[in-house]
Amino acid sequence: MKVIRDPVHGYIELDEIALSLIDTPSMQRLRRINQLGLSNLVYPGANHTRFEHSIGVMHLATVLTSQINSVTVNEKNELRAAALLHDIGHGPLSHVTENIISRYTRKKHDDVKDILKRGEISDILDEHSLNPANIAKHIKGESAIGKILSSEIDVDRMDYLVRDAHYTGVAFGLVDHVRLIHEMQFYENKLVVTPGGLKAAESLLVSRFLMHPSVYYHHVSRIAETMCTRAIEYLIKNRALDPFELRDMDDARLFETMRADEGYAGELAQRLDERRLYKRALYVGFNSVGESVLRYRGNVGRVEVEIAEIAGIEPESILIDIPKAPDIAEMKALIKNDVKNDDQMLRLDEASHVVATLELAHKDNWRMGVYTPKEHRDAVGKAAREFFEAKKTTKQFRLNEL
Amino acid sequence: MKVIRDPVHGYIELDEIALSLIDTPSMQRLRRINQLGLSNLVYPGANHTRFEHSIGVMHLATVLTSQINSVTVNEKNELRAAALLHDIGHGPLSHVTENIISRYTRKKHDDVKDILKRGEISDILDEHSLNPANIAKHIKGESAIGKILSSEIDVDRMDYLVRDAHYTGVAFGLVDHVRLIHEMQFYENKLVVTPGGLKAAESLLVSRFLMHPSVYYHHVSRIAETMCTRAIEYLIKNRALDPFELRDMDDARLFETMRADEGYAGELAQRLDERRLYKRALYVGFNSVGESVLRYRGNVGRVEVEIAEIAGIEPESILIDIPKAPDIAEMKALIKNDVKNDDQMLRLDEASHVVATLELAHKDNWRMGVYTPKEHRDAVGKAAREFFEAKKTTKQFRLNEL
Amino acid sequence: MKVIRDPVHGYIELDEIALSLIDTPSMQRLRRINQLGLSNLVYPGANHTRFEHSIGVMHLATVLTSQINSVTVNEKNELRAAALLHDIGHGPLSHVTENIISRYTRKKHDDVKDILKRGEISDILDEHSLNPANIAKHIKGESAIGKILSSEIDVDRMDYLVRDAHYTGVAFGLVDHVRLIHEMQFYENKLVVTPGGLKAAESLLVSRFLMHPSVYYHHVSRIAETMCTRAIEYLIKNRALDPFELRDMDDARLFETMRADEGYAGELAQRLDERRLYKRALYVGFNSVGESVLRYRGNVGRVEVEIAEIAGIEPESILIDIPKAPDIAEMKALIKNDVKNDDQMLRLDEASHVVATLELAHKDNWRMGVYTPKEHRDAVGKAAREFFEAKKTTKQFRLNEL
Amino acid sequence: MKVIRDPVHGYIELDEIALSLIDTPSMQRLRRINQLGLSNLVYPGANHTRFEHSIGVMHLATVLTSQINSVTVNEKNELRAAALLHDIGHGPLSHVTENIISRYTRKKHDDVKDILKRGEISDILDEHSLNPANIAKHIKGESAIGKILSSEIDVDRMDYLVRDAHYTGVAFGLVDHVRLIHEMQFYENKLVVTPGGLKAAESLLVSRFLMHPSVYYHHVSRIAETMCTRAIEYLIKNRALDPFELRDMDDARLFETMRADEGYAGELAQRLDERRLYKRALYVGFNSVGESVLRYRGNVGRVEVEIAEIAGIEPESILIDIPKAPDIAEMKALIKNDVKNDDQMLRLDEASHVVATLELAHKDNWRMGVYTPKEHRDAVGKAAREFFEAKKTTKQFRLNEL
Repeated sequence: MKVIRDPVHGYIELDEIALSLIDTPSMQRLRRINQLGLSNLVYPGANHTRFEHSIGVMHLATVLTSQINSVTVNEKNELRAAALLHDIGHGPLSHVTENIISRYTRKKHDDVKDILKRGEISDILDEHSLNPANIAKHIKGESAIGKILSSEIDVDRMDYLVRDAHYTGVAFGLVDHVRLIHEMQFYENKLVVTPGGLKAAESLLVSRFLMHPSVYYHHVSRIAETMCTRAIEYLIKNRALDPFELRDMDDARLFETMRADEGYAGELAQRLDERRLYKRALYVGFNSVGESVLRYRGNVGRVEVEIAEIAGIEPESILIDIPKAPDIAEMKALIKNDVKNDDQMLRLDEASHVVATLELAHKDNWRMGVYTPKEHRDAVGKAAREFFEAKKTTKQFRLNEL
Repeated sequence: MKVIRDPVHGYIELDEIALSLIDTPSMQRLRRINQLGLSNLVYPGANHTRFEHSIGVMHLATVLTSQINSVTVNEKNELRAAALLHDIGHGPLSHVTENIISRYTRKKHDDVKDILKRGEISDILDEHSLNPANIAKHIKGESAIGKILSSEIDVDRMDYLVRDAHYTGVAFGLVDHVRLIHEMQFYENKLVVTPGGLKAAESLLVSRFLMHPSVYYHHVSRIAETMCTRAIEYLIKNRALDPFELRDMDDARLFETMRADEGYAGELAQRLDERRLYKRALYVGFNSVGESVLRYRGNVGRVEVEIAEIAGIEPESILIDIPKAPDIAEMKALIKNDVKNDDQMLRLDEASHVVATLELAHKDNWRMGVYTPKEHRDAVGKAAREFFEAKKTTKQFRLNEL
Repeated sequence: MKVIRDPVHGYIELDEIALSLIDTPSMQRLRRINQLGLSNLVYPGANHTRFEHSIGVMHLATVLTSQINSVTVNEKNELRAAALLHDIGHGPLSHVTENIISRYTRKKHDDVKDILKRGEISDILDEHSLNPANIAKHIKGESAIGKILSSEIDVDRMDYLVRDAHYTGVAFGLVDHVRLIHEMQFYENKLVVTPGGLKAAESLLVSRFLMHPSVYYHHVSRIAETMCTRAIEYLIKNRALDPFELRDMDDARLFETMRADEGYAGELAQRLDERRLYKRALYVGFNSVGESVLRYRGNVGRVEVEIAEIAGIEPESILIDIPKAPDIAEMKALIKNDVKNDDQMLRLDEASHVVATLELAHKDNWRMGVYTPKEHRDAVGKAAREFFEAKKTTKQFRLNEL
Repeated sequence: MKVIRDPVHGYIELDEIALSLIDTPSMQRLRRINQLGLSNLVYPGANHTRFEHSIGVMHLATVLTSQINSVTVNEKNELRAAALLHDIGHGPLSHVTENIISRYTRKKHDDVKDILKRGEISDILDEHSLNPANIAKHIKGESAIGKILSSEIDVDRMDYLVRDAHYTGVAFGLVDHVRLIHEMQFYENKLVVTPGGLKAAESLLVSRFLMHPSVYYHHVSRIAETMCTRAIEYLIKNRALDPFELRDMDDARLFETMRADEGYAGELAQRLDERRLYKRALYVGFNSVGESVLRYRGNVGRVEVEIAEIAGIEPESILIDIPKAPDIAEMKALIKNDVKNDDQMLRLDEASHVVATLELAHKDNWRMGVYTPKEHRDAVGKAAREFFEAKKTTKQFRLNEL
């Protein structure tokens, strides 16, 4: 039993299984994967990694399972292993490369069955009689106890919210995760929040809501990340980067690969290195462009070409970023009704007016952006407004926000 | 210039005026007034006082005014004095005695004109050419800059939310008050939040919402406080306590007065000292009793007698607590619209779906209680249910919550 | 099993024994005893009580014993009870009344055998087969496991250092108590620090060293506390206060008793209420007056009379405060030597140069004070210097410090 | 004026000069330089960078100069620029490459005159009439106000101590830097601590003392860093790395360069990536080997060869790490004597027994290490003991520590 110091949770105990797993190359790679992608361009302290997050998630999973009697020691060990390994499928810069990798390799970041079955990890699991198939299921939240790791209200979210708050310095992330974990139980094979945990559950959801525009969707990191994904796509199309290899890279290797390019990707890499980012030419919410704008998500390239034409510049100088519509899965988490002698369960959004409004509230925060180098800002802004005005499907339309 | 160490804001500078005002008996009395009444029966750390809160409010008011150019030095000094003195009208145990004092003396806790005009405080204000009438207005939020102290979003709330969080250990109180203050300005003689402060303002309101049931309306402190107010009323009716003197007492003197009584008040005091509190016989929300129950607020005594009769016990053994309906004044705070070149103002609840839902959400949290000694719990519970069932005005009624 | 929220340690679990003991009048009284006496005159946040400290000590004792295999469940329960009850012998204002109570009643604050044997506490201990004699020994550190509570490095000190830091806002109190507890073991029936805990043990001692002059011996609280003890002595001598009753009072009752006096004690009480404190007329260290000044400790009254005579004022206007010489018991704590295969133990001051120097360093911080109302400061300062100059036993003497 | 969120100091204001300097490639490179080298192998949270540290130092320098009247606006701007730029001369992994770069290029990390005179930085300084020569002097602490940045007690140390504590989670780093800065003044053109700052200054020194063995000289990071420097030296000798280019690299580029090597450096890089570190074969302090061992510092290569010979293995498998002797420059910081009317200054070690003992205490913590792959541990341990036994110059010698 070894003990490690975590700035968020204090001392965390690592047993022999954890120690062995941590020392595998797959886990060590996570030391070199930034938890928050390029958010450190906005929050200079946000340099924390998937590695420490994974240890934190294992810690919280251990605490939660310790209060559940129905789980066997072997199941606990499998869940702890799953917690530790839950992010080994992440590519460099975490979510930044997630869509690209998934598109080219058909593997989402929680599809890790193949990684669990190879090399040292496989040996360690074998040695301790831990079943890789079970662990893969836990990671995807496809088993009952896997809900602890991946479900509407899981320890993954709890760890990243408090951890991201610690490193960005943003106060909003403060969730009473200790209380929330204390108030979670299995009931009829489902992970539920007990009535005493309602306020803590609300705090988790509200905290995520407040963190979204301030941290996760801050326009500066969003611009940098759009620049980065565009450079990666360019490299893949030019066969300078293999998407299957991308999945195993660390942040540094990805940047070296981008920098080595002599074309568009190299230019974007240099801009990122020197923080000469594209600027917002248009930055508007649903109340300006309507939700129908989401239909362009799969094909922003064509829109970029059209706007470039109107503006009279190269399409490479335009990046359109249309985030997906908010989906607040946590709202569907179950809470035991607080009516005595009545164990029926409610969804969180049925139990709480605040939770019920969060989907709408998240929509308030949604923004799409059209980004371009500083010198084209006016031209592209004008062109983009012209384009979207023409396509508008509703009348209550305003496009002069920034 | 002296410097004082505050656990919440770090070092706070006190100028000569502040130092003189602090050393008056009226301010020193606040050292002996608990900020959170009897919440320390639930949160053992909640022993902080109105004194440190007042210094904290002065500090935040100083920071906010420092970024407003239109305010003169003299106005700033008056506002700082008002911030420091804003709670000198509070009776013992803060809000616990507020209604009683107001009922008997016609003075709310922010009616402090009389205190400002007497004794040392008057001399100090005079010496530094500070106008007591202006200060009294600032404290009531009846002047333009007084809105900094008392309005929908004021520094009073900011200080108490972060301070109460620090001392109770409850995480929910964490508001980004530094950012919020930074994003407040005067516009057309109104205190408004600038667009960059919307998230911080939301965090303030949500934080208050989460703190309400966990701290401010926790049933245990609510029971203790109801016991305490009942003892005070008993003493006043028996001429053992003068309500005008009550207003100038500290917590200890009030308790000594209650303990000295040989009847009902003394008995309640002993119960509080030994933490033998009344228990909840009925504890229900609007979805059980309907909002029409609020009509009993002015006259719970009669309801207590009726229920006592049904239960066959003494009315003294029943305490009914019907809190007032939630009123979320902060929702009306103004925010400058984020549309470019358009300085029109919106109310916070117009700018934010989360804020718009808070009144409803606060109603979810509202609870009325019928409290009684342990041994009468079943009988009183049954009687109370019978009483309220008979009086119910709507059909969607359930009375079995606890 | 109930859970309580502590701002310092987070959630603390209370079992049935703890819950019963907490609800006794002796424990509830501790809610009304300030942990740091009158330090809140310097640090407005320092209003924490012996009650929460006692719960914190129980928590740390639980953590420490959980890692020691040789202790039986019954012993653990007795130790937890002892931890919870260890301060029930404290009089009002904690250490402020300690010497007086001990002088008149022959009971130190950890002599609690009589309290354990009476009333509800006795019943509860009996009911759970806990031996009051064992508990009394643990509290005095006279048993092996009692060393956890009371010895050179005990959980009492750990709790109060981090707690006092939290409430005063002074950064120095930050000890890595979690690590330190983790590195403590029983070896040959002695509580020892393992080699990996040396740095954490050093941090504990150094933290206490830094807290001493900034908090525990800050001259302003020292003046207020000297005024307070003098008022108490006056009341006892005038039979207005019984020292045995004093031991059972809370802070408020003591203050009410002082305020009720129409003579010297009442005058001092009013001064304390209004913060019109005596001032330092002389405030010097050993390098000025030499350690021989300690010979006056038992008899400062006579010195006060002599100095009053020289200054031509009433002796009541002079308070002399000669603290005892520093005694750094922690230095004698044992640490297992870090030489392999060699389990001999060293004292901390043998293992660490920093610890070895602390006694000397504490002497640097030692100060004696002669206090007097503002208006007599010059006269008393001059007289006191004259008095001590004449008595000086060494030549390297300077008396002009302040 | 822009505002940035720092997890350590809260909001930090950046003026136009700061914003321009931050966006230069030299400053942006610091985003990619770990503040604590390879300490993240021990403390997973320690991923903070020289970039945020530089902004923090600028912030503290701004606070300190704001309270000094004698400094002109232009001097303040130069000092702020110097604070921001003070670490641009650091190579990858901060101190890890410091000695190598200095040996080969004759440039220490604070020799930055050449960098200030080239490219964008030079333009920006010129544009705002800031003198690069002055700034270079400030960074080296060779001017009066430069002492704020680089001297016995400077803002550089204050920032890194609290920042390293935040990210490692180690409690020891908590210095009351706000108080310390408040208590610093210029007196006779020297930066001195005023008497009220003595305790805060002691806390700074003691904090550094406690952080040393726990963080800065933790054996695991020391082993990793020794492996890393050895790989770099190998690359330089094999002309695979130019030391002048090394100085401008970031951490990722250095690792890529090491990984690309097919010999010894590549092997060490892979070990670091997979955390297969060398182990301690010998790890002893001065009380074992005596201070005379320091004579080998310049030539550990020869010793490695000799020990390898005794052990019968390749010299590459042995790494000897002999840190320099502790030098506690802070002890020489000046403090104004607290004797009234006497402005003479004392050195901190004259004013404080604790400070006076720190050099000795730091020597207690000093350790040299002989590191080797796991499989050679016994053989190398035996050989190293044999070697140093034979060379010992004193008799009080023990070599069985670990």
